[in-house]
Amino acid sequence: MSAMTYTSALIVGAGSGLSASLARAFAKAGMRVALAARAPDKLAKLAQETGAETYACDASDRTRGPFIDLDPVEVEKAIAVTAFGGFLVAQAAARRMVAAGHGAILFTGASASVKGYAQSAPFAMAKFALRGLAQSMARELSPQGIHVAHFVIDGGIRSARRIEPADKPDSLLDPDAIAASYLHVLQQPRSAWTQELELRPWVEKF
Amino acid sequence: MSAMTYTSALIVGAGSGLSASLARAFAKAGMRVALAARAPDKLAKLAQETGAETYACDASDRTRGPFIDLDPVEVEKAIAVTAFGGFLVAQAAARRMVAAGHGAILFTGASASVKGYAQSAPFAMAKFALRGLAQSMARELSPQGIHVAHFVIDGGIRSARRIEPADKPDSLLDPDAIAASYLHVLQQPRSAWTQELELRPWVEKF
Amino acid sequence: MSAMTYTSALIVGAGSGLSASLARAFAKAGMRVALAARAPDKLAKLAQETGAETYACDASDRTRGPFIDLDPVEVEKAIAVTAFGGFLVAQAAARRMVAAGHGAILFTGASASVKGYAQSAPFAMAKFALRGLAQSMARELSPQGIHVAHFVIDGGIRSARRIEPADKPDSLLDPDAIAASYLHVLQQPRSAWTQELELRPWVEKF
Amino acid sequence: MSAMTYTSALIVGAGSGLSASLARAFAKAGMRVALAARAPDKLAKLAQETGAETYACDASDRTRGPFIDLDPVEVEKAIAVTAFGGFLVAQAAARRMVAAGHGAILFTGASASVKGYAQSAPFAMAKFALRGLAQSMARELSPQGIHVAHFVIDGGIRSARRIEPADKPDSLLDPDAIAASYLHVLQQPRSAWTQELELRPWVEKF
Repeated sequence: MSAMTYTSALIVGAGSGLSASLARAFAKAGMRVALAARAPDKLAKLAQETGAETYACDASDRTRGPFIDLDPVEVEKAIAVTAFGGFLVAQAAARRMVAAGHGAILFTGASASVKGYAQSAPFAMAKFALRGLAQSMARELSPQGIHVAHFVIDGGIRSARRIEPADKPDSLLDPDAIAASYLHVLQQPRSAWTQELELRPWVEKF
Repeated sequence: MSAMTYTSALIVGAGSGLSASLARAFAKAGMRVALAARAPDKLAKLAQETGAETYACDASDRTRGPFIDLDPVEVEKAIAVTAFGGFLVAQAAARRMVAAGHGAILFTGASASVKGYAQSAPFAMAKFALRGLAQSMARELSPQGIHVAHFVIDGGIRSARRIEPADKPDSLLDPDAIAASYLHVLQQPRSAWTQELELRPWVEKF
Repeated sequence: MSAMTYTSALIVGAGSGLSASLARAFAKAGMRVALAARAPDKLAKLAQETGAETYACDASDRTRGPFIDLDPVEVEKAIAVTAFGGFLVAQAAARRMVAAGHGAILFTGASASVKGYAQSAPFAMAKFALRGLAQSMARELSPQGIHVAHFVIDGGIRSARRIEPADKPDSLLDPDAIAASYLHVLQQPRSAWTQELELRPWVEKF
Repeated sequence: MSAMTYTSALIVGAGSGLSASLARAFAKAGMRVALAARAPDKLAKLAQETGAETYACDASDRTRGPFIDLDPVEVEKAIAVTAFGGFLVAQAAARRMVAAGHGAILFTGASASVKGYAQSAPFAMAKFALRGLAQSMARELSPQGIHVAHFVIDGGIRSARRIEPADKPDSLLDPDAIAASYLHVLQQPRSAWTQELELRPWVEKF
């Protein structure tokens, strides 16, 4: 059994939450890290801490509300940014990886990736589309040595602004814990790759 | 038990295949039928036969090929037309139906709606997105009296240009048989609605 | 398109609810009906009404409660009766149908067939097992002309003892409506067979 | 983030394949290991190597063949051993863990846990049932501090008797690689638990 090792990681849609934990975990594992975000100047501190380079890039959005009141402009934007934007980044990454003969592309999904909830059609459309993309890529690119995995993050992620109540410990996902599972999947040898896994707090209803 | 009855039906993306069968089945069931298609002039004969009105509308596409060679312009178009186009039509329909307090919206999916195949990422993205849309709409609009159903059509559809081999009878889906199931779902009383069902030929591998 | 027609139907686990509606729908469609139940004497009236024959047969059970308190004897019985009993009946039916070259076997599942709920492990085990059985049979027997379908009944079924509140009309499944969908699936031509479909009331959460 | 640590592990259905790798991985991680198997004397060497205790226990079987020819005695045995046996062991373990307030129960599933294949109805029934059991337990016991996870092992496992062809490297699952993922899931802090994940070789069709 030989664990996979990668020398660099690009984190797209980087903010102060999960992606900061990923940056730290990947840097600690010896990878060179690059961060792409809408407002890369907000990443200065994280970049300094992890030695990461930063890039400007817009790749996340969502829209909620009664279906018949949704603003088509916002819906189109949500689909374009999340689904088509995800495709563009994935394709650019895949081209280099196929040429190199190895690489890994990890998608961050949500419970909305597998279940379309009321009042959030655009988010469901975009997240379902990314899961379809991940599956298609996994079936096509795995035999070319590219590990494609889709994470179903089911629950809220703990952050500076989102703290769990004292009487409900660990009821939000610890971003460092998520990052540890990303790192594990990244290191899986190719004889036993995970293409999809769920992560949720112990008390989350599902 | 009181079966649902609707007085009119709009078929979007109408061509000579499944939608022609749907038009005939709905007209025969007493509905006024409208057909929307990219090239509505091709629908003249069907319109005459079923008494349907026709409209111009562009709502279908697909792209196939190695993932790293896909043309982003085509991918964006596929997502825009199928997923965003599907949303626009569905929202316009839902607005009228919610106001009226009843109605039904049926989506035609494919095996690619539930499984992302190699070399067809754009089709998987668009079809997954439509399924997410259908689920979100079903959860939100069903309690408002709107029946939303998603059909997973798994297999090829018989047509003038696509005929099954003599030694493999019924190995392609008969569009009239599909239409019969659409009509059945349309008539289901609201105490027992189907939100998703599969249809495939008896000899189809799945 | 030629609809399937069957001349006789055996309903296993027959009671006063769904199976009575099935017996009436199948008899009305011209089929000779046989009813198998734990207490066939309770079926006398239904048998007279539908001209059905009756047989004694034990094929249903369930167990609920905290997992660590479940009585293993009851669990074993639930699995044996529902899962193994279902297998025995299905195999006996399949043998005759394969010899005849046609036939249909319809399984009544529940939301517990696709989602294992807390405090009902034995029911989940038995219903999951029946779904596995139905899928295996469908993949093997469909190409031999046997239509195997699994119904996911998601919600309570209306009965003499279980009536919906006046302010929540049609919030329970009408057994006659379910029977109409069973009959539709039964009549599907083999070019477009449904192997699984869901049925739930319009206001059911899912 | 505090990783979970357990002091002991019981491996049921232990043989020379996956369970040997699990025993080694768990022992290396500092756990006291116990092995339960049909023929515990075959485990002597592994027990010595890992310091494990051994127990006699019968918990695995499968049956394959044309559906109508399956021997009901074998089918009943398969269901009883795999599904009911799995329940008995899980319940005994859960009782101790609930009393202690923590613990983890990991189920080894297969692709047959999520897809019922032709000619293997008993295996599908048993594996579907175990998945239903795992889901029910997860929903009930997670909030009591018990981590329940179900692994979908999709592919053949490499062993002394089953070696991959030289031109298809890593086309069988390395049991040590599977064990590494079991260990990772076992160590997940409760804020981000995986309840289901897939593992398959990079070249496996799915």
